[in-house]
Amino acid sequence: MRLALVGFGTVGQGVAEAVALKREFLRDRFDRDVQIVAVFDSKTFAYDAKGLDPLELVQMKKAGKGVGKVRKKEMAQMLSELDYDVLVEMTPTNIEDAEPGYTNMCTALKAGKDVVTSNKGPLALKFRPLDNLARKNGVELRFEATVGGATPIINLSRELLMAEKVESMKGILNGTCNFILSRMGEEGLPFEYVLKEAQEMGYAETDPSYDIDGIDSASKLAILANAIMGLDVTYKDVNRTGIRRITREAVDLAAKEKKVIRLIGEVNGSGVEVSPRMVPVGHPLSISGTFNVLHMHTDLAGSITVVGRGAGRKETASAILSDLVGLLKRDACAVGKVK
Amino acid sequence: MRLALVGFGTVGQGVAEAVALKREFLRDRFDRDVQIVAVFDSKTFAYDAKGLDPLELVQMKKAGKGVGKVRKKEMAQMLSELDYDVLVEMTPTNIEDAEPGYTNMCTALKAGKDVVTSNKGPLALKFRPLDNLARKNGVELRFEATVGGATPIINLSRELLMAEKVESMKGILNGTCNFILSRMGEEGLPFEYVLKEAQEMGYAETDPSYDIDGIDSASKLAILANAIMGLDVTYKDVNRTGIRRITREAVDLAAKEKKVIRLIGEVNGSGVEVSPRMVPVGHPLSISGTFNVLHMHTDLAGSITVVGRGAGRKETASAILSDLVGLLKRDACAVGKVK
Repeated sequence: MRLALVGFGTVGQGVAEAVALKREFLRDRFDRDVQIVAVFDSKTFAYDAKGLDPLELVQMKKAGKGVGKVRKKEMAQMLSELDYDVLVEMTPTNIEDAEPGYTNMCTALKAGKDVVTSNKGPLALKFRPLDNLARKNGVELRFEATVGGATPIINLSRELLMAEKVESMKGILNGTCNFILSRMGEEGLPFEYVLKEAQEMGYAETDPSYDIDGIDSASKLAILANAIMGLDVTYKDVNRTGIRRITREAVDLAAKEKKVIRLIGEVNGSGVEVSPRMVPVGHPLSISGTFNVLHMHTDLAGSITVVGRGAGRKETASAILSDLVGLLKRDACAVGKVK
Repeated sequence: MRLALVGFGTVGQGVAEAVALKREFLRDRFDRDVQIVAVFDSKTFAYDAKGLDPLELVQMKKAGKGVGKVRKKEMAQMLSELDYDVLVEMTPTNIEDAEPGYTNMCTALKAGKDVVTSNKGPLALKFRPLDNLARKNGVELRFEATVGGATPIINLSRELLMAEKVESMKGILNGTCNFILSRMGEEGLPFEYVLKEAQEMGYAETDPSYDIDGIDSASKLAILANAIMGLDVTYKDVNRTGIRRITREAVDLAAKEKKVIRLIGEVNGSGVEVSPRMVPVGHPLSISGTFNVLHMHTDLAGSITVVGRGAGRKETASAILSDLVGLLKRDACAVGKVK
């Protein structure tokens, strides 16, 4: 399976490392070699039909050299001309117009390539067009890494729990907000102080709006609503309230009732909403720290909750790897080589 | 896919109801009919090669009539003679000698049938012999329902996270103990009082030893250790301490440090143990109520936790259904009918 990696920042490098680490295991299990044949960062690219050395690429990037030659053609042109099987799209999320990810994905899907991505923008803004394009071209679009980092939420509900009817979902979908709310509750600290702390620790951006105003959570919630509950929404359809106005006093009042405040995304029969909510201590959604949590209610299993690291180099690579394994299984099945 | 249901108590009836509910979905998805062709309770049985009516069987059983004729032959003889594809083994757990489940499963595996089970005894006592027998006969032994009720722990780690190396596991594997410890902590009640309450609510047996002495947790932990981490242990190898000696004072002391006491099963490099532990409030293992929780640590995904209902008619049926879906997928793959 020949991969084209587009975007070679933290996530891209994590994927290269994961491929190096798991290549032998996958060859043993699926009788097939997983190779990186193309890599693009924002300015440079490398291509070798015989496969590039994943760890050498990471070294080059760390040394500040880019990954190869300066790219002179448009990315879309290259993605339609090159020979590869799977586009792994990891350019930064753009929640305004979804570019360059959207064009990259469309180009690959139209060229009959499978797409695996960690890029939320295109899925949160243009889910149905992308999903339709994949179906039309008989290929797969997989996006486990867009929601909940390492947490295998999407594949769990679509594959293992495929016979269950998911009736509603509630989740903590942003680790930064959960860190801030947890620290406020546990240490009695004011919002501004903990936000500054999160920025210093690298959990929050200099412009924290994307996290604390719930835009990131709303994007992930829209993806889940579309992928798992069959809705057709964008992140703009999500009724959204962030955590800027959560005071220390509100957190203290909740604590007196043995509750915590958490930023919860919810999809149910009546709509799609992100807002701060009170959650009883001990409830699966009361978890502290930078975790992401998804709580599903289904017709048979009842309540199922999955908790995992919402971000991180290895964690996001793990989710991308699980999607690549999904493609390897599909292909093994098609040629009758299932172990 | 023709099922033989052995054991027709709460779980068996739940499975019959789940088959009735999901039959159309499965036919649509896999182009195949899932039928119950044989049903056995402790004394009676019914067989129809054309398929029995699942809801009629439940009605008969509810009316106290058994499910058909009185069985005169040995179960093992019937299971080796009858025509079916999958044994669904749901006789009560026997942690002394694993019977009659062990013989039922061996008989079916030897006859080339797949086995799906909710019966912990055979897996907690004779995991390797059963696993070897299944491999030798080229069939599958699936047991998602033996651990964590509806929680899709085993299939999650074996299928979706197959490329991850699971380095350690910690879990809350008994809902009764978790209910008791949660109530003690939240209401400041003594152990004996809450145990009595749990017995009155039907969460604990008249002889509560199996739950509160950690035997049930140890059985499930042994199954996980074998299935997910490749060990070869029985529940007797688990270093085990129950919750009988947890006092209200101990729970109060933990609360002063913002911790709760939970009965935790753990598998790691140094052994297999079930014992009461202190867990910080807000940690994924601090969850309250009758939930089961499994926390895995893997090389790439890091920390992943799954929480679900540990028991119940529909919940256990859900786990058995997910195993049946696994078999349907395998068969669809073998004949090239994957959608």
